[in-house]
Amino acid sequence: MMCADLIDMKKDIRAMENAGIEYLHFDIMDGSFVPNYALGVCMIEQVRRETNLPLDIHLMVERPELKTGYFPFREGDTVSVHAEGTVHLQRLLQSLRREGIHPGVAMNPATPVEVLEYVLDVADFVLVMTVNPGFAGQVIVEETLRKIENVRSYLDERGYRDTVIQVDGNVSFENARKMKAAGAGNFVAGSAGLFRTDMTIPEAAKKLREAIR
Amino acid sequence: MMCADLIDMKKDIRAMENAGIEYLHFDIMDGSFVPNYALGVCMIEQVRRETNLPLDIHLMVERPELKTGYFPFREGDTVSVHAEGTVHLQRLLQSLRREGIHPGVAMNPATPVEVLEYVLDVADFVLVMTVNPGFAGQVIVEETLRKIENVRSYLDERGYRDTVIQVDGNVSFENARKMKAAGAGNFVAGSAGLFRTDMTIPEAAKKLREAIR
Amino acid sequence: MMCADLIDMKKDIRAMENAGIEYLHFDIMDGSFVPNYALGVCMIEQVRRETNLPLDIHLMVERPELKTGYFPFREGDTVSVHAEGTVHLQRLLQSLRREGIHPGVAMNPATPVEVLEYVLDVADFVLVMTVNPGFAGQVIVEETLRKIENVRSYLDERGYRDTVIQVDGNVSFENARKMKAAGAGNFVAGSAGLFRTDMTIPEAAKKLREAIR
Amino acid sequence: MMCADLIDMKKDIRAMENAGIEYLHFDIMDGSFVPNYALGVCMIEQVRRETNLPLDIHLMVERPELKTGYFPFREGDTVSVHAEGTVHLQRLLQSLRREGIHPGVAMNPATPVEVLEYVLDVADFVLVMTVNPGFAGQVIVEETLRKIENVRSYLDERGYRDTVIQVDGNVSFENARKMKAAGAGNFVAGSAGLFRTDMTIPEAAKKLREAIR
Amino acid sequence: MMCADLIDMKKDIRAMENAGIEYLHFDIMDGSFVPNYALGVCMIEQVRRETNLPLDIHLMVERPELKTGYFPFREGDTVSVHAEGTVHLQRLLQSLRREGIHPGVAMNPATPVEVLEYVLDVADFVLVMTVNPGFAGQVIVEETLRKIENVRSYLDERGYRDTVIQVDGNVSFENARKMKAAGAGNFVAGSAGLFRTDMTIPEAAKKLREAIR
Amino acid sequence: MMCADLIDMKKDIRAMENAGIEYLHFDIMDGSFVPNYALGVCMIEQVRRETNLPLDIHLMVERPELKTGYFPFREGDTVSVHAEGTVHLQRLLQSLRREGIHPGVAMNPATPVEVLEYVLDVADFVLVMTVNPGFAGQVIVEETLRKIENVRSYLDERGYRDTVIQVDGNVSFENARKMKAAGAGNFVAGSAGLFRTDMTIPEAAKKLREAIR
Repeated sequence: MMCADLIDMKKDIRAMENAGIEYLHFDIMDGSFVPNYALGVCMIEQVRRETNLPLDIHLMVERPELKTGYFPFREGDTVSVHAEGTVHLQRLLQSLRREGIHPGVAMNPATPVEVLEYVLDVADFVLVMTVNPGFAGQVIVEETLRKIENVRSYLDERGYRDTVIQVDGNVSFENARKMKAAGAGNFVAGSAGLFRTDMTIPEAAKKLREAIR
Repeated sequence: MMCADLIDMKKDIRAMENAGIEYLHFDIMDGSFVPNYALGVCMIEQVRRETNLPLDIHLMVERPELKTGYFPFREGDTVSVHAEGTVHLQRLLQSLRREGIHPGVAMNPATPVEVLEYVLDVADFVLVMTVNPGFAGQVIVEETLRKIENVRSYLDERGYRDTVIQVDGNVSFENARKMKAAGAGNFVAGSAGLFRTDMTIPEAAKKLREAIR
Repeated sequence: MMCADLIDMKKDIRAMENAGIEYLHFDIMDGSFVPNYALGVCMIEQVRRETNLPLDIHLMVERPELKTGYFPFREGDTVSVHAEGTVHLQRLLQSLRREGIHPGVAMNPATPVEVLEYVLDVADFVLVMTVNPGFAGQVIVEETLRKIENVRSYLDERGYRDTVIQVDGNVSFENARKMKAAGAGNFVAGSAGLFRTDMTIPEAAKKLREAIR
Repeated sequence: MMCADLIDMKKDIRAMENAGIEYLHFDIMDGSFVPNYALGVCMIEQVRRETNLPLDIHLMVERPELKTGYFPFREGDTVSVHAEGTVHLQRLLQSLRREGIHPGVAMNPATPVEVLEYVLDVADFVLVMTVNPGFAGQVIVEETLRKIENVRSYLDERGYRDTVIQVDGNVSFENARKMKAAGAGNFVAGSAGLFRTDMTIPEAAKKLREAIR
Repeated sequence: MMCADLIDMKKDIRAMENAGIEYLHFDIMDGSFVPNYALGVCMIEQVRRETNLPLDIHLMVERPELKTGYFPFREGDTVSVHAEGTVHLQRLLQSLRREGIHPGVAMNPATPVEVLEYVLDVADFVLVMTVNPGFAGQVIVEETLRKIENVRSYLDERGYRDTVIQVDGNVSFENARKMKAAGAGNFVAGSAGLFRTDMTIPEAAKKLREAIR
Repeated sequence: MMCADLIDMKKDIRAMENAGIEYLHFDIMDGSFVPNYALGVCMIEQVRRETNLPLDIHLMVERPELKTGYFPFREGDTVSVHAEGTVHLQRLLQSLRREGIHPGVAMNPATPVEVLEYVLDVADFVLVMTVNPGFAGQVIVEETLRKIENVRSYLDERGYRDTVIQVDGNVSFENARKMKAAGAGNFVAGSAGLFRTDMTIPEAAKKLREAIR
């Protein structure tokens, strides 16, 4: 949503609904964990009134455990928090789940898979960042494809076959195909995948679906 | 803009242009200096493409001197930074002005006027927060009316009669009148003043103008 | 209470009740705002069950606005927060008062009186630290006697005659007399005033009362 | 000790001595690494005068390397510091040991065992937190039982059979038995194990000992 | 010294001794309080072995109270700490003085004089920064000339006629004259005053002395 | 260079050139990531003018991604950043390499090798600290010899045979030999290896070369 048409969001939300998009992804940035600012609480509140699509909120912030209270989360929402941003990862995931939220662990490109070891039972998904968070329009970090494979094996070996790998960053049609092959199951489509200048959102969504079939 | 119709911004921007609004105010929040997140860089970029109205960006962030580089500021823009957020206030205001920006010093309700003493020559305006920053829909902090008077005297006594006092927070028609009487010259209208449920933006703008005539 | 007999608190609490002490003062330290750790939440909960004396909690912590939620405050309690520790002083005092708490502004020895200017209407008292916070057994900072006078004048000139000045730090019989003369009205008695090795708590309390009569 | 009778500590200390408790555990919290405040320096000093039981001090604080100097540690004391709180873990453990202290590495529930790899030679024990630190009365994090097993294997494989695993958090009779089975050798008993409302400290200690025999 | 010939310091030290320079000024920068790094502890140790000139150390660092222990200060040294960097200004100045050091309060260009009110008795001098700290070669901030006047009056009115005003930043011959006229008594000469490309150090020192006679 | 003759650097630089030293190592310390201050930006600029030896800059600072802009890096320079100091390790290494710099990952003694997993393709070398960073003259941390072996295997197994291991800390002739045997290929020689009181720099360099032949 960081890359959506923020001036005419109503149009984009309708287009995404029509394209059968499963959820709306929101980037929250604090200017410190990542060098950028993105969307905010009001936007989430207003979008919620406009659509019944579930929300997927990606907290790119320092110490997310202190900030979840700012948001009007609702049962069924998806919320991802960064392993690098908190020393209370287990507690945070657990408390989100208790509120009926689907919690996920987000990982920066350099972060090793070992951070997942003791939180797999309280996470519904793992968000493997395929670019460095904080900017739109970056090129994929190639090593993250290998990382998707590693995380997939790591999950499978521990019996977490249902835990999904979400990918975010330069999810183009071509990259989506590779990510899918590596083990990704959930794709955050931005300016490279969904909000393109050369085709409409439903067209792009269709093409993306074909790429990851 | 934190309170605008974020789902149909185009409509609100058109309405504000028609209402003769002088500039568009953007709240940037970092979740740490204030307990909230608001708008971001993408929004500013997209709004700029949509309208020629000048932008007024209020940075409610820690250490703004490290973050001004994130924004696509342009000559003629207005940018306010908080005295409480930086130990390099003079440097920051000076460097903004050198880029052709109109810099302002923002002050939280408790902040004393003495922080202004040595930066008046590099500030185009003083933003007196009339509520505690971070939330919409608050009631005015009464003592800030007295503070507007104090800042006005402070500026006048030092020969800065042209330095404007901007007010932000619960700028209702009634409060705007009192703020104007106290010395305010620039009004950030939010949900109490401009984005109301009981009248259109042009109607509200007209009423607000009458209140501060 | 930082200096009380923590091994036999029951005895000290009884002694303080018998001595007619008006409230129990608790030091909360975070090891960062001050280089020390003192009492905690459990202690406060247990003392509350033991006595009906009102509690006076002095938060020597960074960003107290994020931490007040940890405490089982109760209507009628007294809570002081440091002006140096938060950029949201007005908000914090106001929100404490709304919960029925008596809020106070604490000031380190170097802090100027100007920080009080716009929060006097939401503060029941001003705590002038007469030593540097973080340690017991220090010698009084002489300049703080002059500061008590200044704060007293500052309050009186602005019509806040009922706002009390609390003093904390080396409140010996001799110093208490001087502090009283300078304008203090509320005395936090520690190892120099109440918990002495040469007399009982009731004896010390009696002597202290004579000193500040 | 966070859960002891802080009002009549003398009684509890006597009871623990009589029950043959091996050491007194102190929780130090800074309100930032964990969202709570517990005991402090004065308490440690006073308890030391009251008993010859060795002290076991658990520093739940940010950057413990800057704060160890606040405490009156003594040769033979046990001190645990969190791997998540410092980038100078080797240095801190090494310097504690040089002062004759038994140093331990504390780990939050989500922290992977890899953090132990290069500090095993300077640690006398590993503290596996079995709840998220900062609160009393929590339910055990089930995954930490598996973690105890992993840490035990990790230590044994590297030849550190004498390095003890300490557990802290919801150490009830039932959980203590499971923790023991998983490899724990040292049990921090709080409100679930030692300070119970349904039996005396010696009774509880006896029952706990039976559970972990 | 930030601007000295760091490659051939011996030569510059000799030149400064011959020129009758009263002390050697060292800039310590932490990359956070100011956006730069300068000299360090080893340099100070080595220079001390090379010369008997007293040292004047300017700590441009966050929380200087935690860092003074890194330095091999000696009785008779001069040390300045920033009012903006610590909430324990009184304590820090007092403790420096107790070690026989001449303490000074450094102020960034925007900092108001009120921060001095309760530390005048523990400060030997006030360092008025005449540029924003962190870079060499900047142009003077004009308002700081007026600030020197204000600080001078402030000191005189309170009976601190012997407290010297030190100035640092763009101390050229021309500016030195103006600073002297405004009330400065101690001049930190850098690339504009002492380490010039168009004359030797003794020549520059002579010219500077004439300017401030 | 932290241990060079800072008073007569010219002489030491000449001596190092004559001794065939491959590059000049600079320690940058921020007083927070490590408890010390070392060299700075000016020194680097001046040394560059004096010699054509390539520079190797070791950033012992918090959040190095915010500070690389302070330095006049040049193509062919070597820059190492600490894995413990940033959550954007991949981004930082990648952006350094794009500027033609040889980037390296520095690791404190306790840091596990897993942090290297996804940054090997953007790192030219790994700096294994063999003492705790922040002080000269320390004794080697013995476990770091084992760590050098582990890192070497880790690199080789992943096909990074050309990635060099640099060692820094107590690189004496004896230790250098052991480090070499463990897998180190690049030696930062300080007061134990190069800047000795018992021989000249060329003599020491020769002896060090023999030790690691």
